[in-house]
Amino acid sequence: MSNDLSEKPSSNALDTLLALVADDLARVNQTIVDRMHSPVALIPQLAGHLVSAGGKRLRPMLTLSAARLCGYGDGDDHVKLATCVEFIHTATLLHDDVVDESDLRRGQASANALWGNKPSVLVGDFLFSRSFELMVEVGSLPVLATLSRASAVIAEGEVHQLMTTNDTTTTEQAYLEVIQGKTAELFAAACKVGAVAAGMPGKEAEALYSYGMSLGIAFQLVDDYLDYSARQEELGKTVGDDFREGKITLPIILAIARGDDTERAFWTRTLEELDQTEDGTDLRHAMALMEKHGTLADTVTRARHYGDLARAALDIFPDSAHKKALVGIIDFCIDRAY
Amino acid sequence: MSNDLSEKPSSNALDTLLALVADDLARVNQTIVDRMHSPVALIPQLAGHLVSAGGKRLRPMLTLSAARLCGYGDGDDHVKLATCVEFIHTATLLHDDVVDESDLRRGQASANALWGNKPSVLVGDFLFSRSFELMVEVGSLPVLATLSRASAVIAEGEVHQLMTTNDTTTTEQAYLEVIQGKTAELFAAACKVGAVAAGMPGKEAEALYSYGMSLGIAFQLVDDYLDYSARQEELGKTVGDDFREGKITLPIILAIARGDDTERAFWTRTLEELDQTEDGTDLRHAMALMEKHGTLADTVTRARHYGDLARAALDIFPDSAHKKALVGIIDFCIDRAY
Repeated sequence: MSNDLSEKPSSNALDTLLALVADDLARVNQTIVDRMHSPVALIPQLAGHLVSAGGKRLRPMLTLSAARLCGYGDGDDHVKLATCVEFIHTATLLHDDVVDESDLRRGQASANALWGNKPSVLVGDFLFSRSFELMVEVGSLPVLATLSRASAVIAEGEVHQLMTTNDTTTTEQAYLEVIQGKTAELFAAACKVGAVAAGMPGKEAEALYSYGMSLGIAFQLVDDYLDYSARQEELGKTVGDDFREGKITLPIILAIARGDDTERAFWTRTLEELDQTEDGTDLRHAMALMEKHGTLADTVTRARHYGDLARAALDIFPDSAHKKALVGIIDFCIDRAY
Repeated sequence: MSNDLSEKPSSNALDTLLALVADDLARVNQTIVDRMHSPVALIPQLAGHLVSAGGKRLRPMLTLSAARLCGYGDGDDHVKLATCVEFIHTATLLHDDVVDESDLRRGQASANALWGNKPSVLVGDFLFSRSFELMVEVGSLPVLATLSRASAVIAEGEVHQLMTTNDTTTTEQAYLEVIQGKTAELFAAACKVGAVAAGMPGKEAEALYSYGMSLGIAFQLVDDYLDYSARQEELGKTVGDDFREGKITLPIILAIARGDDTERAFWTRTLEELDQTEDGTDLRHAMALMEKHGTLADTVTRARHYGDLARAALDIFPDSAHKKALVGIIDFCIDRAY
């Protein structure tokens, strides 16, 4: 099993990829800073805060590695496109954090709390537009088609998620559509445009698109698992945010399907009506029900399945350091669960 | 004078343009409906509400007329690009309506009140992304460059406006930069891409860009004048919204510059601290100060100046029905003041 930690310590997979693309990633970071520039001071301030605070640069690294896997040579198209991908991701984060009055009442904190909704939305728009300007510089219509489509699909996925929030009749199928849109499409597009930049717009681009799609689904499944896991606390994050917001993720969907009438009444009260005890009793009961029905373990099993699909998608590529690193990233995404 | 109503009744100018582009505009309206489609039902619902409620389609008509002025023949590129322009405009409206808790406290109503901030932001993102997908179909890199740049400039202008709000030291120069960004750039880009679609990317495109830029500045100046005008009430809109929000527009900037210390203290209290009487006394006093210093009339004079620039930009084109209609639109924009 590729997820056997004793055999393949995936905690290093991210470092392995990082080492392979280090020079390219340094150029991405520089491009990010250059392209955030604006005479309107609040823009580099706010964007800079988010981009520098912002995590592991997983998506742009996928673009860089995909390009190198496909034999990308000299040039900076891959660097520009990786920057585009990170800008789209950052814009999405800013817009996803927009809060309604009702959220504020529930005391939800977010990055937007610092600056307010409106600056966050507008700076997101700026980054999004800059991303397209940068793509136009690269000048590849297939790349523009891929990333503009991805942006529309992401927005659709986010709206779809809003519509399933607090809806305990949400099906596993609807959930899959949501995470494909809001998360996996950008992983897929990030990988695909690397191949296109390297002059491999055919089966290599499609294979990398499939890899990214399955990887993104696995990534989000593990994220949704982690929200209810003790691992989450070790990572310094709160447990049960999804529960408190009434987000209907797979561990919940499976628990509802496997529950009896009493349990279903509990889910309706806590997730649809958002009538939850303040002392955490309801959250603990929810987690006990997920444990009882084995839905957390099943969520990780589903993630592993998509990990296998991602791995298979890379079969068409001959062995190389980048192929090995991209396989390692699958394990990294899934092993976060352990 | 072109603004002499007895000589040139500009109230019909919009109808004249409308008649010229009627067939094309019908195709734009159909394209809008087609491209708003999404399996996620909330998207066509919310977007449809805004697009169908949404006004006079001035910007897409500019694209259509500019294309025809430049001899656009058969095809649907001009229709697609006019749709792109309207989608960007609609997305901007949705994002501009995003409110912060503080706005809600001040009882500001907006379209977003119906659905909440988050759906509005995400549907705006969807329309924006769809706009780029549609542009990619047209496949012209100069068009993509023009409209992606315009989008970034609009976002910059909106953020810049946020930064000048409640700031009574805002200069006329800063104000001009704001309205060039938030309003005029899209007018300019809308006109320019019509020329590019017609295969006139050179001096015709630049002339139409200049026309649109000056027209857009004039349009916004008149808008900012109207906010303090009795005409506004005749149009069924509230007077003084800008004052209540502490928006620093030209009639205010000039009044502050021409006022004495007592007046400046008044502006600081009402606009910076937003400490305003509820009974409208402060608004009436503000309007009396603008009247006293002649700043409303001067704002319209500035608009007329930009109208003259817009007219001059069209000089390179031989006489035609479309040229006449585009000149008429300048008068339409300015004569709204009367």
